[in-house]
Amino acid sequence: MVHNELFQYSVALGLMDGVADKGLPISDFLKHGDHGLGTFRFMNGEMIVIDGKAFQMLADGSTVDLDPAGDAIHPFAQITRFKPEVTAQAVVPDKEKLNDVVSGLVPGSKNHALAMRIDGVFRTVTVRTAAGQTKPRERLLEVGKKQVAFTFDNVRGTMICFRQPHYLQGIGIAGDHLHFITEDRKRGGHVLALESDGEVEIKVARMYTMTLELPKDDQEFNEAELFGDHKDLESVEG
Amino acid sequence: MVHNELFQYSVALGLMDGVADKGLPISDFLKHGDHGLGTFRFMNGEMIVIDGKAFQMLADGSTVDLDPAGDAIHPFAQITRFKPEVTAQAVVPDKEKLNDVVSGLVPGSKNHALAMRIDGVFRTVTVRTAAGQTKPRERLLEVGKKQVAFTFDNVRGTMICFRQPHYLQGIGIAGDHLHFITEDRKRGGHVLALESDGEVEIKVARMYTMTLELPKDDQEFNEAELFGDHKDLESVEG
Repeated sequence: MVHNELFQYSVALGLMDGVADKGLPISDFLKHGDHGLGTFRFMNGEMIVIDGKAFQMLADGSTVDLDPAGDAIHPFAQITRFKPEVTAQAVVPDKEKLNDVVSGLVPGSKNHALAMRIDGVFRTVTVRTAAGQTKPRERLLEVGKKQVAFTFDNVRGTMICFRQPHYLQGIGIAGDHLHFITEDRKRGGHVLALESDGEVEIKVARMYTMTLELPKDDQEFNEAELFGDHKDLESVEG
Repeated sequence: MVHNELFQYSVALGLMDGVADKGLPISDFLKHGDHGLGTFRFMNGEMIVIDGKAFQMLADGSTVDLDPAGDAIHPFAQITRFKPEVTAQAVVPDKEKLNDVVSGLVPGSKNHALAMRIDGVFRTVTVRTAAGQTKPRERLLEVGKKQVAFTFDNVRGTMICFRQPHYLQGIGIAGDHLHFITEDRKRGGHVLALESDGEVEIKVARMYTMTLELPKDDQEFNEAELFGDHKDLESVEG
């Protein structure tokens, strides 16, 4: 079985232009790995795949334990079969420092993609959860304006993360992209900020191969203007 | 056997920053298809794969019939196992018109990649052939300034082509990227311009899946600045 290859469905620029009506069925998506993140039809919530199990984290604070053979679809999603190359304990005072810590664990990787997982107790984790489109083709920037943010204090849980290099911005999401779920799998979302006082466990693997599958017979995707301003994407997925 | 999936080694921005010392061995590359194009170590010539056979087209006008188990390596290359979806006869007065003709054969494909093959007699085909780096890390723009251009008149041959959408510029090469080889497989290069009076045969297939393999343990790649100006890439690969 192949590990640490990234499978990605569609491109982030699609969400930027509001393409979220169709998507890859969850059963097809989960064939490609056990560690992932993404979104849902109409950008309704945040998706996380942890240890092969997929969850939908909704803006009302609830979490749905997804049926792997169910009807969920993903207009944008990324997954890998994760096998850590490096495991380390580190204090990560904030998200920027996490970036430095991880870069130190896999030096010379600025032009490669990484899969990461962080387990531990965080002093704070601030997440946002997309509440979904209110009309067809509503763009991610607009959906993002209505997102719900929430801060957890002294919370134990896991972050599933991908880092993609700058040159993949727009195709994927450049920089560290983290989704969080609590240990009891009841709450979570897209990580805006984090703080830890004590050490957390960080696992990292480089990914040298990426498979990009594009939507087929999807009129919204076919008609979309996939140019986008990378700054816009940074503002909403950073 | 899977058809019409694009396999690509490295990113075009690597060539822009002069990354051309290492590459994928030809034997690994040819596992992924029978229809392709790319370059060689130190950007020495143009590569074409036609009907599963690979050729190196050099700046002195000669062509090397490559050993599929030989020592050629490719710092950047693209290949697919080509199965045409559409075959048509058309007059293509110039390269821009070719773009329109192909778009008409597979409507609604502006956000997808295409594989194409064109066979016939051309009134003129103007090609260039990269003459190679004169020093390590010499950038493609500099290499391009020393390229050799040549125009064939009333020539019969084949063009192997990929089209990638705008949003993949830098990762791959946006727009129509064509390499030509004569019927006797003795001459060819990267197509700068073409003209045909009579009809040529055009075969096209959409590619919905792309696998991108990045260099591993390649210090030049690891250190490269893969930002690049998309206009620069257009000027040298357009």
